[in-house]
Amino acid sequence: MKTWRDKVRKVVPYVPGEQPKRKVIKLNTNENPYPPSPKVKEAIMEFDTECLRRYPDPECMSLRSVLANYYGFEPENVFVGVGSDDVISMAFMTFFNSDRPILFPDITYSFYSVWADLHKVKYETVAVDDNFRIKKEDFYKENGGIIFPNPNAPTAIYEPLEFVRDLLDHNRDVVVIVDEAYIDFGGQSALELTREYDNLLVVQTFSKSRSMAGMRIGYAIGNQELIKAMNDVKFSFNSYTMNQSALLMGCEAVKDDEYFKKTIKEIVATREKTKERLTALGFECTNSKANFLFATHQTRKAKDIFELLKSKDIFVRYFNLPRIDNYLRITIGTEEEMDALIKALLQIL
Amino acid sequence: MKTWRDKVRKVVPYVPGEQPKRKVIKLNTNENPYPPSPKVKEAIMEFDTECLRRYPDPECMSLRSVLANYYGFEPENVFVGVGSDDVISMAFMTFFNSDRPILFPDITYSFYSVWADLHKVKYETVAVDDNFRIKKEDFYKENGGIIFPNPNAPTAIYEPLEFVRDLLDHNRDVVVIVDEAYIDFGGQSALELTREYDNLLVVQTFSKSRSMAGMRIGYAIGNQELIKAMNDVKFSFNSYTMNQSALLMGCEAVKDDEYFKKTIKEIVATREKTKERLTALGFECTNSKANFLFATHQTRKAKDIFELLKSKDIFVRYFNLPRIDNYLRITIGTEEEMDALIKALLQIL
Repeated sequence: MKTWRDKVRKVVPYVPGEQPKRKVIKLNTNENPYPPSPKVKEAIMEFDTECLRRYPDPECMSLRSVLANYYGFEPENVFVGVGSDDVISMAFMTFFNSDRPILFPDITYSFYSVWADLHKVKYETVAVDDNFRIKKEDFYKENGGIIFPNPNAPTAIYEPLEFVRDLLDHNRDVVVIVDEAYIDFGGQSALELTREYDNLLVVQTFSKSRSMAGMRIGYAIGNQELIKAMNDVKFSFNSYTMNQSALLMGCEAVKDDEYFKKTIKEIVATREKTKERLTALGFECTNSKANFLFATHQTRKAKDIFELLKSKDIFVRYFNLPRIDNYLRITIGTEEEMDALIKALLQIL
Repeated sequence: MKTWRDKVRKVVPYVPGEQPKRKVIKLNTNENPYPPSPKVKEAIMEFDTECLRRYPDPECMSLRSVLANYYGFEPENVFVGVGSDDVISMAFMTFFNSDRPILFPDITYSFYSVWADLHKVKYETVAVDDNFRIKKEDFYKENGGIIFPNPNAPTAIYEPLEFVRDLLDHNRDVVVIVDEAYIDFGGQSALELTREYDNLLVVQTFSKSRSMAGMRIGYAIGNQELIKAMNDVKFSFNSYTMNQSALLMGCEAVKDDEYFKKTIKEIVATREKTKERLTALGFECTNSKANFLFATHQTRKAKDIFELLKSKDIFVRYFNLPRIDNYLRITIGTEEEMDALIKALLQIL
């Protein structure tokens, strides 16, 4: 018998991330250990909910203006979306319409292949070297576009601006997306290069350095022609995605630069201290410029450590994937959380 | 010379809706004239922004539970998304994967054809009759799925439950989506039929009757298998779309049923009064069960009236489309706004 079930889209079943209800030390999703700026709280206290009866501004001009002002661009250089996931998916849809495959590293953010499949974009992964460094020469071949995170995830490794420039110099005829979700924790952004290269799109997020994962705000900055193309595609099928409270809170978070810089400084200090302590315990960490460490132990298996930490209510991230299945990704929490981690590891090892 | 521009997705250029900066009477986007429940304001005043550092619950269980409880279902019967636009687009993606075309009325919500194109779903439009009624027999033929708004937009015409049931009885092997964006203004929801028909998906929104267009919240209710399929598709490429403040405010809006019913009653009363006054001015209106009137004038052209009203800072909606290009869609505002409309029309006519 025919049934509607025959026509349901087939997808890979989703296993929700571990969200234990009890209080645990959660170092598994690269969230910020500090709350967002107090200005965000102040703004929402005064939020005029009467306005909610109206649709939000589809152009999101308030937030685009604040971001443009902060980074020294025009609002027309800024696209905003529901988290950088939404922004990158939209960029794939807008720019990756070639017969040639797009390229990204084999060890990288897992959603690139998902969006490529979703939007029927061909892709090839390019192997990073044994030290997890991206080999730029492998991106010189003809392709339909390039995307990579800088710093890369989950390796935490940052490539300097000359690397990005070199990639752009060898790829002038396709869009190159640099996913800078973790750039604020020690790297230098490629934002300035967007003034020189009209095919460079830089994507950032409020979920990490601005401590607003719960509000779902991401953005892309690039030349106005790129941004207009993305907005045209977005407006063609869904004009209203950013709600009024996200626009309001996003603006306030950006305006409080002092708080932003202070919390980043603390996270970076905690990262360096934690790295030293992990090294003393027999771990090797990559040179992280992100808000997490990517660590392997000299003698103990990553999976075992992961399980043992979990039994002590400390959640870190383990990927059962080729090449990285003996590594842990450990989010930088507060000093107290990292103390608890080190204490637990001392017991385990 | 090859350029990235060659591979940019081609879309129909978007013309943003008129959003005049000065104070006008805005009866052109079917927004609610009353603010959301005061409970929404109270809740947001106490919103713990510290939580924003965490990702929101991808399962959206708080809001799904509140909606389930309100309508007498389980949370597993409820899908929530970023406005009903997001919900319907996700439903197209999940259920409309047939070689046969999906069917929807020729006069209807303009985005159905957009999402069909976006997700490469074939479609056929089915002409409504000369009184803008949907002819149910035309939906008996083999198809890949069905969607229609009830009440329909922009005609405001409601079809009774027997109509929905008949459509379902003739279409058991495809998913039937009833888009009930305007159902609370006088129609009877098909929600109860989801208990009988496992292929019925009912979509509603917070943007109209709950006065929260600015928060972008929509939902679908159906049997648990349908809802699981939608969540599987959603989770497969973007887990986090509903931000924390939307989940919180959405819950509060649903809980305040007294306020909800009171404001609806006022809007319906204003609608009926306005309809009488328009009729006295020579308009003919359809039998609206929505928060807007669909009106044509016996002697004056709709486009002229639209322009003249605009010159008096009263914005209604005019569609330059076949069959309805002599009609105006007039959102029901406050009593005062409708007084101003009638006064302006008296001058114009």
